[in-house]
Formats: sequence, C-alpha cells, structure tokens
Amino acid sequence: MAVYTEVDDQALSAFLELYDIGGLLSFKGIAEGVENSNYLLHTDAGSYILTLYEKRTNVEDLPFFLGLMNHLAAQDFPCPTPILQKSGNMLGSLAGRPAAIVSFLEGIWPRKPQPKHCGELGAGLARMHITGRDFDLTRQNALSVSGWRPLYNTCNGRADDVIAGLAQEIEKELDFFDANWPSDLPSGVIHADLFPDNVFFVQNKLSGFIDFYFACNDALVYDLAICLNAWCFEYDGAFNISKARAMLQSYTRIRPLNVQELAALPIMARGSALRFLLTRTYDWINTPEGALVRPKDPKECLTQMRFHQDVTSPAAYGLDV
Amino acid sequence: MAVYTEVDDQALSAFLELYDIGGLLSFKGIAEGVENSNYLLHTDAGSYILTLYEKRTNVEDLPFFLGLMNHLAAQDFPCPTPILQKSGNMLGSLAGRPAAIVSFLEGIWPRKPQPKHCGELGAGLARMHITGRDFDLTRQNALSVSGWRPLYNTCNGRADDVIAGLAQEIEKELDFFDANWPSDLPSGVIHADLFPDNVFFVQNKLSGFIDFYFACNDALVYDLAICLNAWCFEYDGAFNISKARAMLQSYTRIRPLNVQELAALPIMARGSALRFLLTRTYDWINTPEGALVRPKDPKECLTQMRFHQDVTSPAAYGLDV
Repeated sequence: MAVYTEVDDQALSAFLELYDIGGLLSFKGIAEGVENSNYLLHTDAGSYILTLYEKRTNVEDLPFFLGLMNHLAAQDFPCPTPILQKSGNMLGSLAGRPAAIVSFLEGIWPRKPQPKHCGELGAGLARMHITGRDFDLTRQNALSVSGWRPLYNTCNGRADDVIAGLAQEIEKELDFFDANWPSDLPSGVIHADLFPDNVFFVQNKLSGFIDFYFACNDALVYDLAICLNAWCFEYDGAFNISKARAMLQSYTRIRPLNVQELAALPIMARGSALRFLLTRTYDWINTPEGALVRPKDPKECLTQMRFHQDVTSPAAYGLDV
Repeated sequence: MAVYTEVDDQALSAFLELYDIGGLLSFKGIAEGVENSNYLLHTDAGSYILTLYEKRTNVEDLPFFLGLMNHLAAQDFPCPTPILQKSGNMLGSLAGRPAAIVSFLEGIWPRKPQPKHCGELGAGLARMHITGRDFDLTRQNALSVSGWRPLYNTCNGRADDVIAGLAQEIEKELDFFDANWPSDLPSGVIHADLFPDNVFFVQNKLSGFIDFYFACNDALVYDLAICLNAWCFEYDGAFNISKARAMLQSYTRIRPLNVQELAALPIMARGSALRFLLTRTYDWINTPEGALVRPKDPKECLTQMRFHQDVTSPAAYGLDV
C-alpha cells in the first residue's frame, strides 16, 4: 500500500483549477501501487486517479507512459485516460512531485484468477499489442536481457542471503541468455508488468489494464510470457495448463504467433521468470525491516524459471502445435 | 494510513449480495482511520465505505455507533448512513471481522483549518447535540475523568520517558480533576473525537462528520472543549482566539450554553487536553518502531493543558460573558 506524499487540500484544489473537471468533492489516498502515491478523487465531473510520481519513476519516461495510455484509450482500448489540463499538458506538479490525473477505471483485480480471467486477459493483451502498433514514441526495455547482468551486479553478491545457491543459478542463466536470447521477434509496445493487480474485471469481463509504468518496446511474445508466469502458476508453484491454454488460445485468435514466436515462448517465459527473480531479489536485499511495502517473494520466480528450463515445446503451455 | 485486513474480491462480491446496492464495480483500500480497515466501494448504486472492525474496536459497542449514525442521518444530520442488509442487519462479517457498509460522504477535511471552518464546525456540533437528544441507546464514556487514572496507570510509570517531568504533571492534574470535575452539566450524545480529519467540507461548507467510534454519553460542553483543543491551536502551540470565537459563537447561536457550562469551559478544555495527552502518551510508549501508523505527538496536548490551567473565564476563548 502506498501513499508516500501527503497532499494538502488547498494545494489540490488549486491544482484542479488547471483542469476542466469541476470542483473537488473528496480525495482519498489509496493503497494501490508500490512505486507512486495514488489518490482517488471525486469531482463534480466524476471519479479520477491522481498520481504523484515518486523518486523511483524517471520523469523523462512520463511522456511515453502517459502518451501510450492516451493513445490506447483514444482507440477505445480500455485503460485510464490521462486528463489534459486546459493548457493541453498531461503532466503537472503537485506537492513537489510530477503529477497527473487519469480517468478512473472501474473494475476489480482477481485475487484468485480463474481460466476465464486468463482468457479475457489473453484477448486484451492481443488487442493492446495491435492497438499499440501506431504509437509513435519508443522506450527501450531497461529490464530486458541486456539489463539483467547489471541488475544482478547491484545485488553485490548477496543473492545467496536470500536463497542458498541462488547466485550460481542466476549466473548460469545469465550466461545461457547471453548466448541464446532471440533477437528477431516481432516487437512493439508491451505492458511488461501485467500481474493480476494491474488487470481489472467487472463481473468476470475484462474492464481494462492499469499501471503502464513499465511499458516499453520489446518482443510482443515476451509480454505474453510475463503473463504466463504471473497468472498461470498456483500458490504451491504448480503450473496450471488450463489457465495457460485459455490465455494463449484467446491471444492467438486475435494475434497469431509466428513460428519464431512459438519456438521462443519457453525461453521468453524462462527469461521473464529471471527478470522478476532479479528485481525481487534486489528488493528483498534492499528493503529495510518494518518497511511500509513488504517485498514480494523471489522464490516463486525461481520455481517458475526451473519449470521453463525443462520445457522444450510450446505444447507444454497448452498450445496445439 | 490503514488497511490491516485484505479483502478477497470473491468474498466481497458474496458479501454484497446481502445488500441491495447493486453489483461491485471497484474497491480500494483507503488510507483513512487508524483503528479499522476501510475500503471505498463503487457499486451500480453509488459510492460506499466498507469498514472492517479490527481488534481495538469493541464489537459490543457497534450497535451504539452504527445506531447513532443511522439516527442522525435519518434526521438529516450530515454523516454516513449505515446501509441495511436485506435482512435488516446493520452489522455483518467479512474476512473474519465484523463489517459494515455506510454511505460515502463527499467532502475534504481541512489540513489548515481557518476561522470559517471553525464556525461551520461549531454550528454542526450544536446541531448534532440537539439531533442526538432522542437517540435511545447509551454508552458510557470510558475516556472521561474516571477512566484517566486507570489509563495513566497502564503507562507503567514510563511517562517521563516521553517528556521529562510529565509523570508529576499528570498526577497533579489527576488529583485536581478528582476534586473539581463538574458533574451537573447538561449531557447527551457526544462525538468525542472531532479532530479536523473527522470533519468534511465541500467548498468550505460543512458536508458532515465521520468516524463516530468514540461517541458516547457525556457533558455536551466537553465535546465543544475537545474541538477547542483540536481546532484552535496553531502548530506552534499558540491559541487562536479568532477560531475559538467563531466556533463558540456559532455553536451558542444554535444551542446556548447555560451558566454552569460557561463556567465549566476552562476545566473541560483542560480535562480534554489531559485525555488526549494520556492516550497519546500510552500510544507513544506502546508503538513499536517502524509501525505503520506513527503515534501523534503528546507534547501539543501538554501545551494546551498548561494554557487552560491559566484560564479563569470563558472570555479567554472569545466569548462575550
């Protein structure tokens, strides 16, 4: 849960005068997102989310993130729309932080995703990939294969403090990916962080995606691989092929995977597991005791990575190939 | 900020079926209240607050608190209204906690209250006292004069760890109140915790009171004295007589104080300062480092208590007497 920056009511009212969304009726700090401070606003015109970008967000990336949401929403892809100031700006400043207001997206993220949610997600992801095609800004994926070794190095050899033997296992994987990571896959804008808490449903129908603050340009199938890990493993680490099949089938019905993408799915999923293993290991090492936000468990990523190491065909994910 | 209990989306959807407020559109844990977990819900029928009562709330008191809100709201006093289940119950159970849903009250609490806010508050408080007259449940004030010495004793002689010399100062006050606390004042239902974060405004007009979880029966003027301390001292400890005058004048225009109440105002204010000094001292001693909720500073209550010790007439608060 996260409200890092307290907002003064008078400063917020003054900030809202820059917009054309009526007067402020209420605002509540909400326990959502771990990087930034979020408030739910009610104004005369409706409900909105106010985000104050905290120090882990690179301000230079905000035009990409906000521009992408604006681009997608303008083409009826369901996601929050940045509200423009009367001046036309999407980004302002409040309480000493870069700040933006986006439309409020109704919906609930599923605490226990079912195959039907995975099917909805797959179709939504394919639509997002297609809708993102003609977005004209680009942002390199800082957390793709070339970023993993530098990220690992910032753990300062302390990976074994988290899980015994982890350092050696990670190093072996890094070497493997350096030699084998595919580079010729169809690429475009990916969300790159579509965990269940970023995907909303109303009555089990997808109502939209939120939190585009890791979005970037990369292989489209890598986004799908992230979802495979984030949605299709049970709490006990077991892979649920029904969920994976539902997700992949509904994705490919809208955007078919080519031969290279199909072949790359296992290594993509294995790489995605390493990517989250690395950031979680880093957070685990660097989160002080008693911190407001409890770091996520790196172990589940390790289990997933090991699972994908043994996969030789995308058939293991429920695809008919 | 406070979300102590995580709510599962499916359990919440099932819980909402007990009510007649439509389907769930969204729910967000909000950073409001320090005792209980609060969620802002959007349903087909509108906005609501879901509260899960955590262990510091005595379940036996909930019919009083919820009944009072229901009584006040039914007479158009602006406060959240408990939503009845189809069965007629106000109180249910969710995630292993007693739980209730109340209507969402629009409004913003003023971070820097002005005299105009104090005037609105005074009028609202008088209205609440009048509207509460015919509420038929009663609840003793556990934090009134007879509760202070037991509360102080739970600090186990550690008051001096918080502020040097505090123990002796508190003990002197306890003796003074034992001998001088008035017992013949008009009494009724009081809110007992009307700090600025419990009083909402829309465009500087009172939109209502929230958080009735300290409400009880006690001297009405004691409630006013609590507000005097909570609203009329500046951050530097200075008493702002303009704010006090605005509050007291607008209160007495609606509910005049009798001679005994006027005379009692200084000792009531002094006692209210001690009451919050004691609970804050207790919390200060008993809050572990790095806790989610930072304890409030007891020092400001001490400053207020000392101020009222020197007051001999309610004229010091801006009243023409």
